[in-house]
Amino acid sequence: MVKIDLNCDLGESFGRYTLGLDAQVLPYVTSANIACGFHAGDPTVMAATVALAEQNNVALGAHPGLPDLVGFGRRKMQITLAQAQADVQYQVGALAAFSQTGRLHHVKPHGALYNMAAADYELARGICLGIKAVDPTLILVGLANSQLIKAAQDVDLPYAQEIFADRNYLADGSLVPRTQANAMVTDEATAVQRTVAMIQTQSVTAIDGQKVALAPDTVCVHGDGAKAVAFVQKIHAALLAAGIEVTAL
Amino acid sequence: MVKIDLNCDLGESFGRYTLGLDAQVLPYVTSANIACGFHAGDPTVMAATVALAEQNNVALGAHPGLPDLVGFGRRKMQITLAQAQADVQYQVGALAAFSQTGRLHHVKPHGALYNMAAADYELARGICLGIKAVDPTLILVGLANSQLIKAAQDVDLPYAQEIFADRNYLADGSLVPRTQANAMVTDEATAVQRTVAMIQTQSVTAIDGQKVALAPDTVCVHGDGAKAVAFVQKIHAALLAAGIEVTAL
Amino acid sequence: MVKIDLNCDLGESFGRYTLGLDAQVLPYVTSANIACGFHAGDPTVMAATVALAEQNNVALGAHPGLPDLVGFGRRKMQITLAQAQADVQYQVGALAAFSQTGRLHHVKPHGALYNMAAADYELARGICLGIKAVDPTLILVGLANSQLIKAAQDVDLPYAQEIFADRNYLADGSLVPRTQANAMVTDEATAVQRTVAMIQTQSVTAIDGQKVALAPDTVCVHGDGAKAVAFVQKIHAALLAAGIEVTAL
Amino acid sequence: MVKIDLNCDLGESFGRYTLGLDAQVLPYVTSANIACGFHAGDPTVMAATVALAEQNNVALGAHPGLPDLVGFGRRKMQITLAQAQADVQYQVGALAAFSQTGRLHHVKPHGALYNMAAADYELARGICLGIKAVDPTLILVGLANSQLIKAAQDVDLPYAQEIFADRNYLADGSLVPRTQANAMVTDEATAVQRTVAMIQTQSVTAIDGQKVALAPDTVCVHGDGAKAVAFVQKIHAALLAAGIEVTAL
Repeated sequence: MVKIDLNCDLGESFGRYTLGLDAQVLPYVTSANIACGFHAGDPTVMAATVALAEQNNVALGAHPGLPDLVGFGRRKMQITLAQAQADVQYQVGALAAFSQTGRLHHVKPHGALYNMAAADYELARGICLGIKAVDPTLILVGLANSQLIKAAQDVDLPYAQEIFADRNYLADGSLVPRTQANAMVTDEATAVQRTVAMIQTQSVTAIDGQKVALAPDTVCVHGDGAKAVAFVQKIHAALLAAGIEVTAL
Repeated sequence: MVKIDLNCDLGESFGRYTLGLDAQVLPYVTSANIACGFHAGDPTVMAATVALAEQNNVALGAHPGLPDLVGFGRRKMQITLAQAQADVQYQVGALAAFSQTGRLHHVKPHGALYNMAAADYELARGICLGIKAVDPTLILVGLANSQLIKAAQDVDLPYAQEIFADRNYLADGSLVPRTQANAMVTDEATAVQRTVAMIQTQSVTAIDGQKVALAPDTVCVHGDGAKAVAFVQKIHAALLAAGIEVTAL
Repeated sequence: MVKIDLNCDLGESFGRYTLGLDAQVLPYVTSANIACGFHAGDPTVMAATVALAEQNNVALGAHPGLPDLVGFGRRKMQITLAQAQADVQYQVGALAAFSQTGRLHHVKPHGALYNMAAADYELARGICLGIKAVDPTLILVGLANSQLIKAAQDVDLPYAQEIFADRNYLADGSLVPRTQANAMVTDEATAVQRTVAMIQTQSVTAIDGQKVALAPDTVCVHGDGAKAVAFVQKIHAALLAAGIEVTAL
Repeated sequence: MVKIDLNCDLGESFGRYTLGLDAQVLPYVTSANIACGFHAGDPTVMAATVALAEQNNVALGAHPGLPDLVGFGRRKMQITLAQAQADVQYQVGALAAFSQTGRLHHVKPHGALYNMAAADYELARGICLGIKAVDPTLILVGLANSQLIKAAQDVDLPYAQEIFADRNYLADGSLVPRTQANAMVTDEATAVQRTVAMIQTQSVTAIDGQKVALAPDTVCVHGDGAKAVAFVQKIHAALLAAGIEVTAL
């Protein structure tokens, strides 16, 4: 039976600031990527989010980001490999401390760190080494076909290839940048249908019409609004209807 | 044979800022309390400091502080018990991620967090529960006879009673506050002699002449300057000369 | 004609995090206290909030807080007088830089800084000196009858006495702490009616029945939700109906 | 008579961390660029540094940086133009609040912000607009011949062209990046002699032998160590000996 994981970024509140409908989206996903205090999240939020994720029996993952709270980790920064590795180790360890088992299941870099590493092999390697130093059984979640996946393979770290339900692709397998008009798949029905097709056909059609081969392990979904949560429910239902098992990595 | 541990705060540099003669002091101590990024330290500094401590074969400990970098964690803050517990868990987990074993040996709260908890049982309990949640074998290092020790006993967490070589004591066993003129033992020879006596007699004479019973497990020393390091060497030599074994907890 | 100012805390968003219905509440208030980046706000938010306040022709004020973003400036911190003064100067200057005139109208300390200074004369004096150093024509907004008002009088800084529409008072003129059950006036009609009466009678009845004399210059209202904004509209209408002029300080 | 300004970055301490020999270098420079709390400095340090600079009668300038304390503002970040402008306005206003006159004399961006803007016209323009919004008489200090100078000219902001005593130049007038082996002029006598020549000949020889035309208004010197301070003294003496007046912009 074909299997897929649904992963969602959670725990992005901070102090007085609340973000995301974590409790509403959790029943429909199988993996939680929890912010670790650099781009979002704080220790109290992390404690509560880990507890909530454990109650929902989803796989617990760290979602480390750049040290840029005001930019929500979305602004590229010229960090060194040593800094990337140390920042990731720090955040993974910090989150693991809130787990009942003291261990996590996966790590998915956030925002600009994810995007930079998808294209930069050395940075991707630094991140993978940071993860491996904490726990060599952790699964790296990275953009399908990207340098993150290549680096994980090279350093012998388990990995999962991620696809995006609502983003268009370029012919090289990278996402159309958000700065371009056609970055997003805006029609919900199209996005749902295409996601199922990406899993079934192991491929996606890029915006220039070329077919890109993919081996999707997990789909990125969002819980940052009522519309987003409704979309996750639709994806979840469509996957089940297509005979695809929705299960953690 | 009487035994004592010598512990020192390390890894207090931050980014461009260097603080402490870590490499010089390490050969003379048996336990390292490493800053975790809240009051001092950053992930890159932590990685380097853990590596240095491991090379020196000292016991690795976390030194969690209040989230107050500009105040170096020395300003009391009215944090909740949930925040204290989460802040400690976060920092202990973050530091442990840099250890080759993934585990630490002890935890010593820093600055205002240490001082507040020494006098506030509920806060002390929150801290101890935070430590225990990460790893119930971690040793809490706290002011001898303080609420930190009482809380560790109550939650069944291993603990070590700490004495200070260079600080005067009040009759209730607490330290004379730094704001008072006689807070410090300024004469080095007196400080060394008194430290040895505290261990041998299991007591200290408070500034009002009263004798305070103590059961010292560890002595706090400093490495933040050439004079401090020279003092650690003297203490170390005096302890050995007195037939006291200097060894980790 | 009796006059009163209605002041509201604004600009409390931060990066990706949105807080407060600033645009909705602005038409009903006469003074804006804008967060300055320590407890809330960031430079981009400040630029936008100052522009919005200027469009609404309200008086521009700084709302400096403690350096504690994760605690939203609500946790008491043991800062020195020099730190309090410098922190206030810094924040007042930073906000003034966004004003079209380069000048502000008033300064209202935020949260724990406001509450600590209301009871601590020395801290209040440090804050007033910080404000005066930037611009001696700035109006200090402080709790009516508190140490903030006394300090402003002593250092010859203009001041405005603030009352709270939705808070109960103790016999000494201080607010019933939020930790007590009867801290808030929960019935809206009562709160509105009482606010008008406080202005007209220059007094309030404390929770123990004693009458406390007051000389209100400004009323604190909130814009952090639809209910809060509706309440501001009611207060505004009731003041006008009572023949009280609603105008900036 | 030929004139030149000597400018130095100051106030780069932070909380417990001390950096720079500010008091020692101040007698030999004519302009102080004071850190504003983003890449270095804190309000208490800023208050002390402004007071020290005023005692030494040097021109007061803001030294705004990227919001990256751990990276000391040296890591490039992908900020938007609106963010750059707001970040600069905020920092310039914050520093001005500590001046006895409430005004500053110049603004020199720091580190990666300076380097990015030297090459990126749009960013340079955002920075210049931010400075102009605070005070249109402020002098922008930027790399000679760079986009910062061009942007200042275009928005009609006063400017000063900066040269570096200890850095080698490329043929396009930019500095040889620090990552290259020949970035620095390591011989002190050569550096001093060359600086005098740059001012007298209004040119510098790039590492490929090409002559680059320059119109130097100010020389960047450093006070971050005893060697650096000694070098400033030598430059200062050599300029005077060459009949060049050392005076603020």
